[in-house]
Amino acid sequence: MFAPVYFDHNATTPLDPQVREAMLPYLGQRFGNASSRHEYGRHARAAIDTARAQVAAALCAHPTEVIFTSGGSEANNLFLKGAAAMLKPGRVAVSAIEHPCVRESARRLVKQGWVFDEMGVDAQGVIDMTDFTEKLSARPQLVSVMLANNETGVLQDIASLAAMAKARGARFHTDAVQALGKVAVDFRALGVNALTVSAHKIYGPIGVGALVVDKRVELAPLIDGGGQERGLRSGTENLAAIVGFGLACELAESRRVADATHAAQLKAALEQGLGSLGATVFSADATRLSGTSFFAFSGVDGETLVGKLDRAGFACASGSACSSANPEPSKTLLAMGVAPEMARGAIRVSVGRATTPDEVSRFVGALSNELNTLRGLTAMAS
Amino acid sequence: MFAPVYFDHNATTPLDPQVREAMLPYLGQRFGNASSRHEYGRHARAAIDTARAQVAAALCAHPTEVIFTSGGSEANNLFLKGAAAMLKPGRVAVSAIEHPCVRESARRLVKQGWVFDEMGVDAQGVIDMTDFTEKLSARPQLVSVMLANNETGVLQDIASLAAMAKARGARFHTDAVQALGKVAVDFRALGVNALTVSAHKIYGPIGVGALVVDKRVELAPLIDGGGQERGLRSGTENLAAIVGFGLACELAESRRVADATHAAQLKAALEQGLGSLGATVFSADATRLSGTSFFAFSGVDGETLVGKLDRAGFACASGSACSSANPEPSKTLLAMGVAPEMARGAIRVSVGRATTPDEVSRFVGALSNELNTLRGLTAMAS
Repeated sequence: MFAPVYFDHNATTPLDPQVREAMLPYLGQRFGNASSRHEYGRHARAAIDTARAQVAAALCAHPTEVIFTSGGSEANNLFLKGAAAMLKPGRVAVSAIEHPCVRESARRLVKQGWVFDEMGVDAQGVIDMTDFTEKLSARPQLVSVMLANNETGVLQDIASLAAMAKARGARFHTDAVQALGKVAVDFRALGVNALTVSAHKIYGPIGVGALVVDKRVELAPLIDGGGQERGLRSGTENLAAIVGFGLACELAESRRVADATHAAQLKAALEQGLGSLGATVFSADATRLSGTSFFAFSGVDGETLVGKLDRAGFACASGSACSSANPEPSKTLLAMGVAPEMARGAIRVSVGRATTPDEVSRFVGALSNELNTLRGLTAMAS
Repeated sequence: MFAPVYFDHNATTPLDPQVREAMLPYLGQRFGNASSRHEYGRHARAAIDTARAQVAAALCAHPTEVIFTSGGSEANNLFLKGAAAMLKPGRVAVSAIEHPCVRESARRLVKQGWVFDEMGVDAQGVIDMTDFTEKLSARPQLVSVMLANNETGVLQDIASLAAMAKARGARFHTDAVQALGKVAVDFRALGVNALTVSAHKIYGPIGVGALVVDKRVELAPLIDGGGQERGLRSGTENLAAIVGFGLACELAESRRVADATHAAQLKAALEQGLGSLGATVFSADATRLSGTSFFAFSGVDGETLVGKLDRAGFACASGSACSSANPEPSKTLLAMGVAPEMARGAIRVSVGRATTPDEVSRFVGALSNELNTLRGLTAMAS
């Protein structure tokens, strides 16, 4: 298999070899249904208990607050739809830069009589406090603002936003999928009622995530059945994946500072190179994740450039992976007031633990070559 | 790890070594988010396309009719809640012996104004046609009857039931989770609008299943977001698990006849032994899966016996694993008119591909010993 340099860690990460090793026995001799009352079932249950404690510890939560799901999308849907199902229809407010699984879950509630509000961001992609305060004054029952944006990497001041929203009586949720492993994610310190995390963004397996939720928030399950996860998420527990998620959380926390330092060094080199090539780096002046750079070159189509870079051996994203099937420009950039033609040029590079300075430097060189070619073609055509 | 003889294949099955081998690359170098538009994403997409074709072929369905989910529980919830969301509240009718993920999904609809009906079974656990016809005359919009019961193994004549229900205007769904790999499951021949399957019941991984659904049935997704699975199930595709599910389906179909023959031989020996020990085998006169025997001994508590057998080296279930946390007697047996005290004695043995005649014979011996001990204690106490 041809293996380009992987610059798309915000879409998914490779499985950590230690995590893989920890999972393998559960894909072998240690199989079992954790609801079974025999040796196999008890072993499975004990392994899940351990993983739940690991996830909780990484997030400064209590193990009983962790509800395992099939991933971040399910966890975000569970909070919004599950909490809404226990309330009389009211208002739901989410930021204008949420992942589609938050935005579309909230919009789905409109059919049940809810009023959907979006809270705007400024030109840097940071929540516009005037708009946020105004939307809160309409007393939404449910509010969701992501901790780190998947495209720009911008971090929001969730602790302050949560405090304001809760003071107005809202239940506040944050999608922390992109933040985990890159910045501290402390359920208590953030003061949110619920937060979402996912294993495959932190070198764990695809197919598992969690909603961490204050038990005072009443939720209806999305998936009814055998009553697993305190009745909030039925279905045979995904044993191997949950075991991997537990270890991935532990490793993410123990490696977080080193990973962030490494990513910051790579970002400095990358964005210096981008600057020298004339790129516009979105959210350049905001507090961002170190590993994410979202940028564009005036007059250059992002999809085209990503395709050329892929063939040159560099795997980047032209938008968030989950909506790449959609040719629309990034909703995040449009919410920031970026012109659609500029937004269509957007490319995202998200580096990871194994990315090297040499790879970044080669990338800048490849980018320069592709831009010269594209611009040469444009010049000839005009 | 102490490894008792595994007699609980209806709860979960060990992962087939070939399936495991097929999955491993996707837990390593071949990782990727199938929505990404680079080399990693395209490889992931191609692997998922192959798996979808394998699942469809095993079920005589078209690949575009296969919606991958996180498992059987989610697929059953998706059909009932997803179809209901597109309809004006009406009646939903399910059999009295459904898995909780079907029954509780249907009951959840009551809060949205639906009327919930249960269709009874006879003493053998077979759908009572008088009751079925009567419930159909109330014109339910949604009907779900399982193909093979997880506890008794009883098979229903789904093709006939589906034809009757559809003639009355119902959308008919069947939970085929326990049937797949043991009897032919032909989506076209059954004539159902939708059916559910799960990988971990057919020697595939936990964490993946599918709803196979006629595209004329409108569904709302349970999980909104990036628009994966034709917009009906968002979330990053569980690549390794889906690849494993595809191969597990192919193997289940190719080994089905041999597996069923093997299971029938084991069942004959097991049930002869059970008879000699004075057991009542439930649904003995019904058409059943070959690998499932559900039985009880008068005056002997099932939980106690299962615990003793576990310590003696045999892992069996006292009820369906998913509700084992619940000390209530089996709803399936109560629906069959079995007395609660007899139902509390129920034990389920479900054999598999690797079960040997020797294991069955040793089990009958161990059971005899445990019964003698228990009966001796009972005699002493009385």
